[in-house]
Amino acid sequence: MFPIEQALADNAREIDAVLDELLPMRRDPEGRLMEAVRYAALSAGKRIRPFLVVASSQLFDVTRQYALRVAAAIEMVHCYSLIHDDLPAMDNDEMRRGLPTCHVKFDEATAILAGDALLARAFEVIAEAATHPDPRVRADLVCELARAAGSDGMVGGQMLDLLAERSPFGISEITRMQRMKTGALIAFCCDAGALLGKAGDQARHALHAYAHDLGLAFQIVDDLLDVEGDQEIVGKRTKKDESAGKATFVSVLGVERARDQSTMLAQQAIDHLDIFNTEAEPLRSFAQFVVERKC
Amino acid sequence: MFPIEQALADNAREIDAVLDELLPMRRDPEGRLMEAVRYAALSAGKRIRPFLVVASSQLFDVTRQYALRVAAAIEMVHCYSLIHDDLPAMDNDEMRRGLPTCHVKFDEATAILAGDALLARAFEVIAEAATHPDPRVRADLVCELARAAGSDGMVGGQMLDLLAERSPFGISEITRMQRMKTGALIAFCCDAGALLGKAGDQARHALHAYAHDLGLAFQIVDDLLDVEGDQEIVGKRTKKDESAGKATFVSVLGVERARDQSTMLAQQAIDHLDIFNTEAEPLRSFAQFVVERKC
Repeated sequence: MFPIEQALADNAREIDAVLDELLPMRRDPEGRLMEAVRYAALSAGKRIRPFLVVASSQLFDVTRQYALRVAAAIEMVHCYSLIHDDLPAMDNDEMRRGLPTCHVKFDEATAILAGDALLARAFEVIAEAATHPDPRVRADLVCELARAAGSDGMVGGQMLDLLAERSPFGISEITRMQRMKTGALIAFCCDAGALLGKAGDQARHALHAYAHDLGLAFQIVDDLLDVEGDQEIVGKRTKKDESAGKATFVSVLGVERARDQSTMLAQQAIDHLDIFNTEAEPLRSFAQFVVERKC
Repeated sequence: MFPIEQALADNAREIDAVLDELLPMRRDPEGRLMEAVRYAALSAGKRIRPFLVVASSQLFDVTRQYALRVAAAIEMVHCYSLIHDDLPAMDNDEMRRGLPTCHVKFDEATAILAGDALLARAFEVIAEAATHPDPRVRADLVCELARAAGSDGMVGGQMLDLLAERSPFGISEITRMQRMKTGALIAFCCDAGALLGKAGDQARHALHAYAHDLGLAFQIVDDLLDVEGDQEIVGKRTKKDESAGKATFVSVLGVERARDQSTMLAQQAIDHLDIFNTEAEPLRSFAQFVVERKC
């Protein structure tokens, strides 16, 4: 059996080192900005998105350094979205990964700017020559990342999520919202591996289908953890969807059917990888891990 | 004499049409997001940055459509920065271009997301194949725009600006802050023309030096208008630097020396263009216009 937990831990350590290098501290008067950026980006995350980039890249023998840079850039985008989503005007969260959120630790203005800086830095890192020798690959990566992050992806999904607190969402609205809010960036992680490796259509489509199902399974488990999880282990406030009266997969499907749905989606994700051999083992084990995780 | 006011008006109309096309309205549940994006980006701005992109591109016979797309993308970045800077946690401004600011018209969460969406869309537009046939040019544009917008540029400058309210800034700190906050993006406008046109080193350096001096002249005049300008004509709250007790070029140099300094910088900017012929007339007239403007 593939040692997924060990692989995730090793990957997280490697990504943290790359982030540390790509987001250097500054001694300038505005050093407070990079302090906030590093506080938010270097706090201990699971680095799930980077893992997907690296594991997808391995299918196509992508140079490790290229994969790591793209992985770090996507993690920057993820961290920027957490900073902004946590703001008082948005979800108003004070805890994240077991620590005070960025605007609590610093202040709101600094947190907004730290998020903005991370987003710009992510695009800069991807566009730099060190990310891939072929500029067409870099331009394509920028384009797809921007789509996944923008109004048709993550930002649009967060808008929908905010509106969800006011209007009655059914299963199809929740699915659409989650596909945009978290699914688009997760799907891009696997697309990035295919782009870096100049994969053929068949491999590209298989990977995309995997990421699509995986993203939804991941989100359903997130909703389950919000209801069932232990705040100490999950590292952020739980039961918040319920107290906000917000429709989630769990509130609409119930715990048992939501659990079944996530297992079914994870299996479906794994089946999409049938065209690959043992080199896809990390991705298969990861799908299994996602539905079994406790945090 | 070059009809600069007419040229600016024509350019603004053209850019507005491109922005209208690149930021389409949406009927989805999350349509509120694009409504806010369009409210902020399509309100009547002077479109000074787009003018610089187009005028610089003309020096190198760049296809107009390429220049217009980059010009629109840079204007998106400028508009995103205005939305975020106006937020209550930042400068807390309620008027912009004679209208309520984005968070007043919509709400804070929507305004934060509209800014985020504009920034992502700007990178998407630049990276798309329609912006330039050579992907290396597109990747370089993304890289330079990200640098101008990020922690070493605009975002870092805004952080410094917020800190300026708390600490005593002298002329060198103000200059550095403005170089980052507004100068970096203005300089990128001219760099973008050179990149699109694959300009040689001499032309590139001359244009960059022009933009550098122009950016500072522009900011000094902005500070002068804040002190001397009519709120009705300027279209935003004036005298705000003074009431915030914030050091500006005017508070440090005084009105007369600040005025002299801006005139001197504009002339210096024009001198940098000596290597060009009449094709640089729009840029020369623009530098003159910048120091004579009333809003």
